[in-house]
Amino acid sequence: MNTMDVSAKAEIGSTRDSRFDILFEHVHIGPRIAKNRFYQPPHCNGMGGLRPQAHAAMRGMKAEGGWAVVNTEHCSIHPTSDLMPEVLHTLWDDGDIPPLALMCDAVHEHGALAGVQLAYAAYYNANKLTREVPMGPIARPVDGYFPVQVRAMDLQDIRNLRGWMRAASRRAVQAGFDIVNVDANFSTIAFQFLSPRNQRTDEYGGSLRNRARLLKELIEEAREGVRGECAVSVRLIIDELCGDVGLQVEDEGLAVIEMLCDLPDLWDVVVGTWADDSPTSRFAGENEHEPFVKRIKSVTKKPVVGVGRFTSPDTMASLIRRGILDMIGATRPSIADPFIPRKIEEGRYEDIRECIGCNICVSSHYMMANLRCTQNPTMGEEWRKGWHPEKMQPKASDKHVLVVGAGPAGLECARALGDRGYAVTLAEKSRQPGGRVTAESALPGLREWGRVRDWRVTQLQKMPNVRIYLESDLGVEDCLGLDVDHIVLATGSTWRRDGLGRLRNRPLENTSTLPILTPDDIMAGRSVSGSVVIYDEDHYYMGGVIAEKLVQMGCKVTLVTSAPEISAFSYNTLELPRVARRLDSLGVTVLTHHLLSGLDSQGPRFAHIHTGRAAEIAADAIVMLTARQSNDALYEPLLQAIGKEKRDRDISVSRIGDCLAPAAIYHAVYAGHRFAREFEEAIEEVPFRRERISLQSRD
Amino acid sequence: MNTMDVSAKAEIGSTRDSRFDILFEHVHIGPRIAKNRFYQPPHCNGMGGLRPQAHAAMRGMKAEGGWAVVNTEHCSIHPTSDLMPEVLHTLWDDGDIPPLALMCDAVHEHGALAGVQLAYAAYYNANKLTREVPMGPIARPVDGYFPVQVRAMDLQDIRNLRGWMRAASRRAVQAGFDIVNVDANFSTIAFQFLSPRNQRTDEYGGSLRNRARLLKELIEEAREGVRGECAVSVRLIIDELCGDVGLQVEDEGLAVIEMLCDLPDLWDVVVGTWADDSPTSRFAGENEHEPFVKRIKSVTKKPVVGVGRFTSPDTMASLIRRGILDMIGATRPSIADPFIPRKIEEGRYEDIRECIGCNICVSSHYMMANLRCTQNPTMGEEWRKGWHPEKMQPKASDKHVLVVGAGPAGLECARALGDRGYAVTLAEKSRQPGGRVTAESALPGLREWGRVRDWRVTQLQKMPNVRIYLESDLGVEDCLGLDVDHIVLATGSTWRRDGLGRLRNRPLENTSTLPILTPDDIMAGRSVSGSVVIYDEDHYYMGGVIAEKLVQMGCKVTLVTSAPEISAFSYNTLELPRVARRLDSLGVTVLTHHLLSGLDSQGPRFAHIHTGRAAEIAADAIVMLTARQSNDALYEPLLQAIGKEKRDRDISVSRIGDCLAPAAIYHAVYAGHRFAREFEEAIEEVPFRRERISLQSRD
Repeated sequence: MNTMDVSAKAEIGSTRDSRFDILFEHVHIGPRIAKNRFYQPPHCNGMGGLRPQAHAAMRGMKAEGGWAVVNTEHCSIHPTSDLMPEVLHTLWDDGDIPPLALMCDAVHEHGALAGVQLAYAAYYNANKLTREVPMGPIARPVDGYFPVQVRAMDLQDIRNLRGWMRAASRRAVQAGFDIVNVDANFSTIAFQFLSPRNQRTDEYGGSLRNRARLLKELIEEAREGVRGECAVSVRLIIDELCGDVGLQVEDEGLAVIEMLCDLPDLWDVVVGTWADDSPTSRFAGENEHEPFVKRIKSVTKKPVVGVGRFTSPDTMASLIRRGILDMIGATRPSIADPFIPRKIEEGRYEDIRECIGCNICVSSHYMMANLRCTQNPTMGEEWRKGWHPEKMQPKASDKHVLVVGAGPAGLECARALGDRGYAVTLAEKSRQPGGRVTAESALPGLREWGRVRDWRVTQLQKMPNVRIYLESDLGVEDCLGLDVDHIVLATGSTWRRDGLGRLRNRPLENTSTLPILTPDDIMAGRSVSGSVVIYDEDHYYMGGVIAEKLVQMGCKVTLVTSAPEISAFSYNTLELPRVARRLDSLGVTVLTHHLLSGLDSQGPRFAHIHTGRAAEIAADAIVMLTARQSNDALYEPLLQAIGKEKRDRDISVSRIGDCLAPAAIYHAVYAGHRFAREFEEAIEEVPFRRERISLQSRD
Repeated sequence: MNTMDVSAKAEIGSTRDSRFDILFEHVHIGPRIAKNRFYQPPHCNGMGGLRPQAHAAMRGMKAEGGWAVVNTEHCSIHPTSDLMPEVLHTLWDDGDIPPLALMCDAVHEHGALAGVQLAYAAYYNANKLTREVPMGPIARPVDGYFPVQVRAMDLQDIRNLRGWMRAASRRAVQAGFDIVNVDANFSTIAFQFLSPRNQRTDEYGGSLRNRARLLKELIEEAREGVRGECAVSVRLIIDELCGDVGLQVEDEGLAVIEMLCDLPDLWDVVVGTWADDSPTSRFAGENEHEPFVKRIKSVTKKPVVGVGRFTSPDTMASLIRRGILDMIGATRPSIADPFIPRKIEEGRYEDIRECIGCNICVSSHYMMANLRCTQNPTMGEEWRKGWHPEKMQPKASDKHVLVVGAGPAGLECARALGDRGYAVTLAEKSRQPGGRVTAESALPGLREWGRVRDWRVTQLQKMPNVRIYLESDLGVEDCLGLDVDHIVLATGSTWRRDGLGRLRNRPLENTSTLPILTPDDIMAGRSVSGSVVIYDEDHYYMGGVIAEKLVQMGCKVTLVTSAPEISAFSYNTLELPRVARRLDSLGVTVLTHHLLSGLDSQGPRFAHIHTGRAAEIAADAIVMLTARQSNDALYEPLLQAIGKEKRDRDISVSRIGDCLAPAAIYHAVYAGHRFAREFEEAIEEVPFRRERISLQSRD
């Protein structure tokens, strides 16, 4: 077995480089002072008002990690702006104050400022929960498919809205917030009035001054509401990215900031829709927005915040030094590593757990489930499981653990067990650690996913109690010969070739001679040419990525999926339209709504998912994405061998990650972490604290 | 003005016909006695454990209305079976008991029995909230698109599952339930083991006896758990409706009941998936399942419950008399009218508010919002608004209200105001009442929707304080000349012809000579022929229904929609696949993912919603479904006239329903009802009680 070189485990950078001192300067935001330049912008998290204690603990963790400003997500100011089932906050009445006060307390405990994003949506209010009649700039159906129209606001409606902003701002002060953020994000009424797409003909439509009137009034109302007791900021779209149909930064984007320049205490600027503003690493890199934000500071003296999935201290310092931003807005990086500011402050740059830009965080919003992160398995678990991203409880014994497989689950398991102080042996059969992360990060667009491996390997190399062996393909006797107390199998999974999947509980009968490939074949470099059909029942990124890869290899590609959209799950990671555009630009043919119904001498046969109507596509080869099979061949033999032999000590065996149940990478990292947290601990049947509804007396 | 004949307002049927006495016989269910044969089966409601007080009040209302048995919806027995974000119940630990005890109390208060549906899902558990590894009969991806696979349960997992069922059953007794229902519905583990699609090779797969083993064991565990203190029932799919691939009633469906015949105290039998079991009236009528359930009683002596959207007392009595069912299961009818049993008992048949079979109730589950109903605007509002389906508070004054328009909003407004005792004048310009309901119920498949009108007209005809005038197209002076205190405009809406809609804030430029029609034209009988393109940005039923109508008229029809599915919203009413099949069978061509981008001399131009790629379709006419415009022409002139003239008393004006903001019919009925409830009442800014999270101490 080859052991990785651990002699180079040096402590790198234990003091901060002075070029980053600029990031730790104070910033004045109205009557408040931010202790440094790190700003956590508003972001959804699937907890919000539905799980306020989990929400408060998560925000508090950001503050503990050193962020000077920590914001809530979208907080609705009135029941006529109800976005349920999306999990958000509300400040509709005084009963909404205590759950938000909890967050303010958690944030203040660590010397950070708490901000609240006060929002009133426009065409996006279906008001499914409140059943109120929605309102907007003009009368038209709400966005999406819900069978409700908004009515056009009249002048009295606008006066009411101003009153709601004032009242909500007052409640925000009562909750303890330091900053009230007037939201002029894409979906908000303030922005929909501001946009040139506003077709009103009264004093709130037409000229930029007219269209900006509502935003100006809402800022003024927020000022009235807070009575000088806290700051007022604005989050503004400065470019709609849709040409001259919408707002453009060099035209009206800058002009509106110039017009309102001193009214708020801070400008937080963003671009386009949520999907535009938060692209995955597959489609955009760090600091993508600089061309849009670079001139904002020329038109206002107030601090400017911008975003760009910043994880590099050099990029951050450069943006400040070049006078482009005053504060570094970072949402996804703050989820992947809430302790980025502290790590930079302490010169521990290599300890930063960099965001991989997969947007699985966004998916938790759509799932209404606690925020999660591929890189940070503790995210969203701060309150309900008591997990801390930087602290593990100490080991419970001197047991020695063998982890077989250094993919995302195995690496994290070994790292977290090592952090607890356990003696850990990590064995990997390949020459490289990383498992599927290493294989997949070589596919088009997924390079940054390698960070899942890199951060863990860096941490592991610092642990004298963890030994890593590469090129070590262990068998049963190898495992049992290692003098360990527990064996964790993290040996991953393999794509199935037989068609069993979501729509078929048994293998597909196959009488064809067609080559049947899987993503594993493609990742292993197997050559393929001609017309290739990808059959995608997986619905996440892999089908689209394999299509890109096959086009690079010179194939003519058709992607068939049983879903109504290609890469259907990627709606939840804000990628779906971009995937469609990229595949279209690459000449990939797409067929939605069709399941693979047969494989015979004529080739693959497809049937419409609703009607059953048959479709055929000529193919030289087919790539199957239906399901994966756990690589758990060691499990039963190990159990049997342990049962047979009488040894000095008991040995137990567990499976984690894809080896137990194939899933996305973030599940694997979570599984590895969870195993380490729970190893030798007593765990309840319901392994987390729950938020309960307070039952009032009946009347 | 023509007034409807009110002299015929007779009290019909004030005592019960003896042929319905059979419905009021007791039924023994294990150790409990149901007071009559009315059984409210488990049904989702968007409140559940998320809004337990609203849930309890809703179930209590069913009990008050006379149902002998009132069930919860799906109640998960363990965190490894987590269906979030669907709103359901849980009995995972003792903390889950109080919210369900609240329901039991509410149900017991009216002498009914409370049942709980104890469920463990199979391939359907994505465990998004709990993040537990899901389990099922075999290893494969979960249903839907979520990137997680279930792992195959081993024998220890099955032993654990049995323990969870026992523990949950015990907790059910502690909560106060009278009946524990072991769920073997489509998505459950019990049924997925039972189905021939189960591919296990151990003692839980293969023969029917093997496949039924888990269900048998779960029933036995429930018996163990309840210790004779309450009854144990089973809800079972008896036919999967997918031929010999799945379970078929005449083969194994009957056999499994015969095999387990005396084990449960009651059999509640259903057919297929939720969509199969609960078709809309567009696709199936009352008592559709009789062919499937007719032989069940021949193989068991235990009481049998079946469903079939029963609203006719004659159908119900006949099913009992013919020995097909022992209890009448009715979910949707119990939502449309919780008081059906009491109304039959009291001989008030014409007062039954019959379910129209639109399945808007189902959509509330998918919206995670309180249950709602087209016919019953109080549904889901029992707790938070204190609304009772049969009781209105008395009027606050002797004011006289004019309601203009006898569509769904106007009819319900007049009826509810009349119920409060107000003097009401209802004026309708057409010869028939019903407005859009009358027009739309003449379209293919929507006949039953006329019940919205019929029930209200029947009720109005009994009210001496309500005068109805048909063929009365009132102008401003007509309204003001009527000596009324308040004018409610319920004048509906008209489909837009200009293309403004969800995807376009301004009219579409149109340089074509193509006839542009709207659904209103088709409903008004305008003739159209040749190739017709329907452009559907509405996404609910209308696009598909108009397509059917045009086919009936002899047109060649292409339905283009910007959504990835035709009639995309109808997913939420369980209709989507049926719509696709019906349109396919009628020869309608379908193009999804395309928006209407232009109308010029070449005809309509379309663009792909993601890629922008152009598509053209030759057409002789186009039917536009983009948005509707409120018929509010009276509103401003009325306000002006009232402002100008000095009158003896103040007159005020309101708009409700489509006249204020076009939406679905259930919104209109709700708007009418709400206006009547709130008229002359003080209403808070947040007009309903809210369920709050209990904030524990921090630690």
